[in-house]
Amino acid sequence: MTQVQINLQVFPPMPVVLVGTHVAGRPNFMAQGWITRCNYEPPLLAVAINKGHYTYEGIMQTRQFSICIPGRDLLLETDYCGIVSGRDEDKADLFEVFYGNLPSAPLIADCPLNLACYVVNELEFTTNTLFIAEICEAYADNTKMDGTRPGFREIDPFILTMPDNSYWSLGEPIGKAWQDGKKLDGE
Amino acid sequence: MTQVQINLQVFPPMPVVLVGTHVAGRPNFMAQGWITRCNYEPPLLAVAINKGHYTYEGIMQTRQFSICIPGRDLLLETDYCGIVSGRDEDKADLFEVFYGNLPSAPLIADCPLNLACYVVNELEFTTNTLFIAEICEAYADNTKMDGTRPGFREIDPFILTMPDNSYWSLGEPIGKAWQDGKKLDGE
Repeated sequence: MTQVQINLQVFPPMPVVLVGTHVAGRPNFMAQGWITRCNYEPPLLAVAINKGHYTYEGIMQTRQFSICIPGRDLLLETDYCGIVSGRDEDKADLFEVFYGNLPSAPLIADCPLNLACYVVNELEFTTNTLFIAEICEAYADNTKMDGTRPGFREIDPFILTMPDNSYWSLGEPIGKAWQDGKKLDGE
Repeated sequence: MTQVQINLQVFPPMPVVLVGTHVAGRPNFMAQGWITRCNYEPPLLAVAINKGHYTYEGIMQTRQFSICIPGRDLLLETDYCGIVSGRDEDKADLFEVFYGNLPSAPLIADCPLNLACYVVNELEFTTNTLFIAEICEAYADNTKMDGTRPGFREIDPFILTMPDNSYWSLGEPIGKAWQDGKKLDGE
């Protein structure tokens, strides 16, 4: 037995996304790893925004935000959006922005995947508010699709681990979900 | 402009974990990708369990569960736990189970990281319930630590993408969070 108790601040590996919203009428983006889908139909996601962030103010005002999934080529810009507050620097011009039907959900032309979301519920905790939002529109770079599905090899997303604060590339495909486990059936 | 509208069922890359709980007095495990941290202190996480699953019944009864992060060597067992319901097969003997102080949060000796959690809130959606839980205890395989922190290279976790339903290894370290973006400061 090699299991030992460790500090409670453990984090499963996280996707790295940009959360976009409008604050004071300007598009703003922050880097975010605390995000998950939470219902299939309607398609809901949950994102836990620190209440000290400028983005928090924007989402509370507009009830709209975007989830933009960057590829590795946007690592520096994404990390910059996690370091520098929109209170201090205007981040609107970091990216080429476009819009769907939600006027306060700025989407990023250089991101392979973009979701426009509308807040339907929220839960407030001590440091973070968990926003529950419906995905209203989804856009993808059509050069990074695998047929009608996002092609994650082409998208080249990156992963965050904490508390070592490392970004990782996606490695190799090592299995198929809801399939490989059948090999153990009947054993 | 290469952005095109796609199906709303988009999923950011997900960590793959096992959710353990007791159902009818027996440990049971399911595979899960819809999970995120949602508050720093107290350390909270949110996990969206499909209400049709046997695990859902267990968590509703016990209010306790575990989050066990498997390495790649447990890919088949993990996927099996996502295919076969505890209603049909007893999964208690798939793993070497141990316990901390929460008697209905079975932990897995073969998993590099294990969290014992207690439900503090929940949000019900159409197909899933989002359980908000406090991390009460954390255990790690002490051969897979990097000093006092989990060593994710040694842990060798895997990532799920949907709807292509692929498992991916963690690739290479490609940057440092809250650091690399400083290179853009002042540009």
